[in-house]
Amino acid sequence: MKTALILSYLGADYHGWQRQENAMTIQQLLEEAWEKTCGGKAYLSGCGRTDAGVHAKYYVASTDAPTTIPLDRLPMALNARLPEAVVVHRAVAVDDGFDARFSCVCKEYTYLIHNSRTRDPFYTDRAWFYPQKLDVAAMRRAARDFVGTQDFAAVKNEGTPVRSTVRTIFYCEVEERGCDIIAVRVCADGFLYNMVRAITGTLVYVGVGKIPQDGIPAILRSGDRLAAGPTAPPCGLYMTALTYNREELDGRAD
Amino acid sequence: MKTALILSYLGADYHGWQRQENAMTIQQLLEEAWEKTCGGKAYLSGCGRTDAGVHAKYYVASTDAPTTIPLDRLPMALNARLPEAVVVHRAVAVDDGFDARFSCVCKEYTYLIHNSRTRDPFYTDRAWFYPQKLDVAAMRRAARDFVGTQDFAAVKNEGTPVRSTVRTIFYCEVEERGCDIIAVRVCADGFLYNMVRAITGTLVYVGVGKIPQDGIPAILRSGDRLAAGPTAPPCGLYMTALTYNREELDGRAD
Repeated sequence: MKTALILSYLGADYHGWQRQENAMTIQQLLEEAWEKTCGGKAYLSGCGRTDAGVHAKYYVASTDAPTTIPLDRLPMALNARLPEAVVVHRAVAVDDGFDARFSCVCKEYTYLIHNSRTRDPFYTDRAWFYPQKLDVAAMRRAARDFVGTQDFAAVKNEGTPVRSTVRTIFYCEVEERGCDIIAVRVCADGFLYNMVRAITGTLVYVGVGKIPQDGIPAILRSGDRLAAGPTAPPCGLYMTALTYNREELDGRAD
Repeated sequence: MKTALILSYLGADYHGWQRQENAMTIQQLLEEAWEKTCGGKAYLSGCGRTDAGVHAKYYVASTDAPTTIPLDRLPMALNARLPEAVVVHRAVAVDDGFDARFSCVCKEYTYLIHNSRTRDPFYTDRAWFYPQKLDVAAMRRAARDFVGTQDFAAVKNEGTPVRSTVRTIFYCEVEERGCDIIAVRVCADGFLYNMVRAITGTLVYVGVGKIPQDGIPAILRSGDRLAAGPTAPPCGLYMTALTYNREELDGRAD
């Protein structure tokens, strides 16, 4: 038996998911909370390696570390040892073959752009403040061309080497929320390094007319990172939905 | 001529609106930004004396300090000298008789209660986390009895002495937002010290059955602060709307 944790976190003050030297990460916070709560060493596998400053509204991590604490009480016990920025909502028993990262069928990230003439203090560290007016209709049109099984090398930054840059995007949608938030929702079977942030930066370039709204196919064909738009900052990015084809783990929050 | 500023602020890291010794306040931040930007001393009158930790989505402050900066450029100039938690959205010329506090006809505060079994990191310092399930229908019923011109001594804490504890509440509404936020919106011609927080604490006591849903009239008649519920914490409180009967100043944000 393994345990899966459903959690959420505000990433602003942390250096992303993955453990690293000399910087505090969500993985380290959770592993230390687990070890103090349950005893024994724990390794937690996370559904995605979010970068520094990136948030998760819905996140799953799994571990094979044993625990004698009943699963319905485990979230509260862990939360007592976690900072307010990280909250475990549920703990679920899963079979040994489960892994939060490799068992995941598809993930959705949502990127929030705050498109307004003046800043909003409530979106500091939570959205990309972009004061120039964006053409949402053009962005929406362009977003459709990211959908499908394609080579996404043009929207991938340097990072851990990967075998293939082909991924399947199931949907890529641009929504207006309220009067000044533009949300980019991208669901895929997997993501390359900084892929959603590069897609968002590219869509923003479409929104200001620097890239034509029918320009995405040529950019993807080129495989040239410089042909696409900039990498949007981490603060606007949220992990928002996961599908494992297991009712007790699938969910969304935004 | 005077100048009115429309602004918003995240109050979590500040000691409220009003200037005080040895603690940073929104008033001091704005006055110092004004003085550095425009030269000369400035006193800013604020529409309400929000407490430490209380937020403003829509706030008006006025000053008779002169400025040579065109009003359409003043917000950006001030924002350059303000922390991200405070943003000036617009500056408007008003006549000498105007005062952001005394000219205000009515104000609306909104109080957010996060009613959920587990915390949400995105509501830290932004809502009152209240894990016990609340009966919203009972709260809604009780809220109606706060409406009207009444003596609100029972929902006022000790503070600056006031001549009268009679105020007029125009509406007091309890709304569900999404699956776990309960918003209490209160609009009045003026508020006593901690009044919205005491009303919210009283409605929460109704929500858990400690006060009957028809118990509000007797509590108000008693004038007894101990008969009402507790004072809700500041983090959930937002100034959200103002009416001056001047089109260029009236507004709401939530």
